[in-house]
Amino acid sequence: MAANTDLTEGQVREFFSTLSNWGKWGSNDQLGALNYITPQKRAQAATLVREGYPVSMSLPLATQPGPDNPTPVMHLMMQTGASGETSMVPVPYSADYFAIAPHGLANTHLDALCHVFNQGKMYNGYPSSDVTTQGAKNGAIDALKDGIISRGVLIDIPLIKNRDWLEPGEAISPADLEAAEQYGGFSVEEGDVLFVRTGRHARLKGKGSWDSFKEGMAGLGAACLPWLHGRKIAALGSDGASDVLPSGYEKIMLPIHAVTIVAMGIHLLDNCMLDAVAEACVAKKRWTFMCVVAPLVLVRGTASPVNPLAIF
Amino acid sequence: MAANTDLTEGQVREFFSTLSNWGKWGSNDQLGALNYITPQKRAQAATLVREGYPVSMSLPLATQPGPDNPTPVMHLMMQTGASGETSMVPVPYSADYFAIAPHGLANTHLDALCHVFNQGKMYNGYPSSDVTTQGAKNGAIDALKDGIISRGVLIDIPLIKNRDWLEPGEAISPADLEAAEQYGGFSVEEGDVLFVRTGRHARLKGKGSWDSFKEGMAGLGAACLPWLHGRKIAALGSDGASDVLPSGYEKIMLPIHAVTIVAMGIHLLDNCMLDAVAEACVAKKRWTFMCVVAPLVLVRGTASPVNPLAIF
Amino acid sequence: MAANTDLTEGQVREFFSTLSNWGKWGSNDQLGALNYITPQKRAQAATLVREGYPVSMSLPLATQPGPDNPTPVMHLMMQTGASGETSMVPVPYSADYFAIAPHGLANTHLDALCHVFNQGKMYNGYPSSDVTTQGAKNGAIDALKDGIISRGVLIDIPLIKNRDWLEPGEAISPADLEAAEQYGGFSVEEGDVLFVRTGRHARLKGKGSWDSFKEGMAGLGAACLPWLHGRKIAALGSDGASDVLPSGYEKIMLPIHAVTIVAMGIHLLDNCMLDAVAEACVAKKRWTFMCVVAPLVLVRGTASPVNPLAIF
Amino acid sequence: MAANTDLTEGQVREFFSTLSNWGKWGSNDQLGALNYITPQKRAQAATLVREGYPVSMSLPLATQPGPDNPTPVMHLMMQTGASGETSMVPVPYSADYFAIAPHGLANTHLDALCHVFNQGKMYNGYPSSDVTTQGAKNGAIDALKDGIISRGVLIDIPLIKNRDWLEPGEAISPADLEAAEQYGGFSVEEGDVLFVRTGRHARLKGKGSWDSFKEGMAGLGAACLPWLHGRKIAALGSDGASDVLPSGYEKIMLPIHAVTIVAMGIHLLDNCMLDAVAEACVAKKRWTFMCVVAPLVLVRGTASPVNPLAIF
Repeated sequence: MAANTDLTEGQVREFFSTLSNWGKWGSNDQLGALNYITPQKRAQAATLVREGYPVSMSLPLATQPGPDNPTPVMHLMMQTGASGETSMVPVPYSADYFAIAPHGLANTHLDALCHVFNQGKMYNGYPSSDVTTQGAKNGAIDALKDGIISRGVLIDIPLIKNRDWLEPGEAISPADLEAAEQYGGFSVEEGDVLFVRTGRHARLKGKGSWDSFKEGMAGLGAACLPWLHGRKIAALGSDGASDVLPSGYEKIMLPIHAVTIVAMGIHLLDNCMLDAVAEACVAKKRWTFMCVVAPLVLVRGTASPVNPLAIF
Repeated sequence: MAANTDLTEGQVREFFSTLSNWGKWGSNDQLGALNYITPQKRAQAATLVREGYPVSMSLPLATQPGPDNPTPVMHLMMQTGASGETSMVPVPYSADYFAIAPHGLANTHLDALCHVFNQGKMYNGYPSSDVTTQGAKNGAIDALKDGIISRGVLIDIPLIKNRDWLEPGEAISPADLEAAEQYGGFSVEEGDVLFVRTGRHARLKGKGSWDSFKEGMAGLGAACLPWLHGRKIAALGSDGASDVLPSGYEKIMLPIHAVTIVAMGIHLLDNCMLDAVAEACVAKKRWTFMCVVAPLVLVRGTASPVNPLAIF
Repeated sequence: MAANTDLTEGQVREFFSTLSNWGKWGSNDQLGALNYITPQKRAQAATLVREGYPVSMSLPLATQPGPDNPTPVMHLMMQTGASGETSMVPVPYSADYFAIAPHGLANTHLDALCHVFNQGKMYNGYPSSDVTTQGAKNGAIDALKDGIISRGVLIDIPLIKNRDWLEPGEAISPADLEAAEQYGGFSVEEGDVLFVRTGRHARLKGKGSWDSFKEGMAGLGAACLPWLHGRKIAALGSDGASDVLPSGYEKIMLPIHAVTIVAMGIHLLDNCMLDAVAEACVAKKRWTFMCVVAPLVLVRGTASPVNPLAIF
Repeated sequence: MAANTDLTEGQVREFFSTLSNWGKWGSNDQLGALNYITPQKRAQAATLVREGYPVSMSLPLATQPGPDNPTPVMHLMMQTGASGETSMVPVPYSADYFAIAPHGLANTHLDALCHVFNQGKMYNGYPSSDVTTQGAKNGAIDALKDGIISRGVLIDIPLIKNRDWLEPGEAISPADLEAAEQYGGFSVEEGDVLFVRTGRHARLKGKGSWDSFKEGMAGLGAACLPWLHGRKIAALGSDGASDVLPSGYEKIMLPIHAVTIVAMGIHLLDNCMLDAVAEACVAKKRWTFMCVVAPLVLVRGTASPVNPLAIF
């Protein structure tokens, strides 16, 4: 395990300029690193569908409160199948309603580029004041209405370390990422959607829930940022927050979030459920698959709950 | 245009038994006609990705009230990018919240098999009382957590009739469906996800909104039911409610909904936005594509808002 | 009927300074004109309870959409009394849930002093930037947690004009207010909670709903502002928005809202249901009563739905 | 302290018939014990307003999750006072939105008579099936639209025991209630709204939060039921759930809730904040006051959040 503080806070702060993709895809760009996904990349990704076997990478919507879920999803029924109810309507039916705050540590969601700011600006230099109570004028989730379709790659850190899970606070290093490439016989390439597994849900199952902001969470150390930039990934998912918590930096609480989203224009997929896909990869002995993410078209939204699919 | 009343109400009612798939996939089955999608079917569907060109088949979440939208989606901001706000937190960010009643005529959504009942029962004979305020014990949307992946087929009725749209109340007949097959050089096959376009959104754009329950809506006539059953489609989508409104039957208000969902176990995709995919089909001169639908994992839910993707 | 444009827009604008109560109750004041209600005033108000007869001045929460209700209250059940449900829990019970956007023209609510701004400032000079997504730092509704208890006075304009209701767009003048005093044998005094009835709900009953922002609404003309200031009322309620719509002023859309709330620090009670209290007043031949308003303690809130009570 | 198990479960169960008020006020009655409040009682209550001093008996709406608050109130802003926002609208304003599940142990609320069932029936014999997803056909909260106005009486158990608070699980006995009457020089009478203080919020302040369903809560023992019935109180409030937790009875988890609401038709005010009113009572050396409760008019609702006022 690499300590997350290989780098000083000043060095991390420099990444906002040295790893910046601002302007790279034009001054009006709304897609950021998703521009790395070409039509060819999508077509190639589809060729990874060999067995016709899909796996969800989503948690269930989190309706129960818990240390990492201060605003549980409200799921309520507008109409049930109780006999007194169904007899009242011409078409007997049931219907439900739900309310969700997609961000946080409980629900699988896709962060829009407007989700994080640095010094009053978001990706591509748009001002943070573009996000008002009327939603986001730039960097909103509906820019992704045609979805994310590319090669998905799973980096399964517990697997290569021969452990069940990483412990809260453990930082993943670039060497770890490369060890996983080595192990799996693949190389992370331009336009890939990279998923990094820490074993968070195996630990939840084994040891019960904990408060990740207080007690920590495994994730990528800030030292991985140049690596992610160099590999030109299109999007980054993990079973946690991508970031290791605590980051070790006083003023940059979530360096992965901040630098990938703001500087590099990388969309994050937080709180993915990666246990099933990890099992599938081991069984099939391949860690690459077609990845499809289809966010809801929430105009001016900062995120969407999603159910990312890995298709083998 | 075929009148929807080619069949008597009694004849339609018989479809609940003559077109039934109850028990076909076991007494505990939760997937219904999605069982027609085999791994091979999925793998073949992926081979339709040639240009690497994805198209959303979803409307934006409907936040504005209107005649077809009595319960608008509430989209609110929990945190904006206003300077006073972002200076208060260690990671300056924005976040939103939304509440949705997915059913109805306003939002693109996937109906679960528990959504409609007939005579106190849902698909496969489960009692309607399985759906309580705690959600659905059977036929719930989370049974589809691994998504729907298959060949998508677009039947574009205005195209083959050389019109901009069908008028409210116009019923589509089996002959119309077959004319579209003929026109497009394809045949609807086992396991396909069938999308039927009536031009609803072109009409909305051209003539403004109307109240579909009061003034009618174009859609499939009840006479299409044996055809859909015979073709063994896996799921059915449309730019409206699939059903023509009014149906012409006093006690079976929505025969397509009722018979496909309850008897045949067919999941419906209501209120899809099919204009962009229709244009793509014309441009590419092919009406088949890889279709991916990834519902949110709403445990015991009766539906999910979705963003169905057509990938060419 | 007085035309609302007796005054020029410039004259109305001057009211922001000439009718200002800023600083009158200290630079930290949160109560505004409610300071006019002394303990003695409350005790006197209680002496108006003679028959022990209470009347609600609230509409039902507005769950149905309509031209004046774009964001209907969502009222959903978390648990019903269906037998299958009550048998599952140790204490059989039912429970509900509701979501409300209290402002607007549909629900009876109490506006907090932070609800309206003029030139970047709210009552007492607090900056509008005090109201963020975290709520209001000043002028919030929870400052009124001990309620509003005072003499209530009803001015029933249709009654004195011998009509069923005022028409949309009709402006009430100071002369009208004084005619009502004359008619009822009372005088509006310091600390009173004044309710002004236009007959809006009688008209709704008789002629159906209309879009008040488009088609107009009866209410107080801007010429009433000096009168309200001179009488030192503590709060102002009406069966509409207090303001006549349209106001006739291009840049001051709601002069009563703006000047009473921002300059005078008067809390408004919008969309009261005044028909029952009006009948009670006629029956008892008195237009004064004990008034009790008990807002929910919504910390940093901009309003509360309320059920104002008139007690005779 | 009396043990709560002075009575056997069978004896408590008998209270459903021996303490029943079913039919007492007619077979269509919706008000239950509120019928004890006569116009004269209200008028007398108003004479208790001497100093003109009101005190809220409500907690703030509970927006923070906690062991007793699994479904926090969502309070969100629809519009803030940020300059970019207020410049966009003709009337610069702020507005909020909130969603609440009023029942539970976190929010001050008034239970409707439809809230609890016993053996498939609610108060007055109405079937529990009257409560569907469309709300309650009988026993709903909107029957109380004209509010509860009566004499309020505070019984402050920690005061008479010379302690700061009762401990979780401590049961209050009839002897305790009578000791408080003795101490305060009053007698609980027909039509009173009785508030019983256990010191719950003093304990919260002193020792932090706990999980009341798991760790217990002080409250009335089942032995108080005949006493409450004999005194003919109109409504019952407390700073907890009225009931002591755990009740000691396996199948009657909340005997006070069950017997008062179902058998006696007594409306409960749960989770009141009684510290300020307790201080006022001590200061004024009187434990009786005018009590006003004004529930929101939620048609067919099972409860309303309320801000009960004590007026001295």
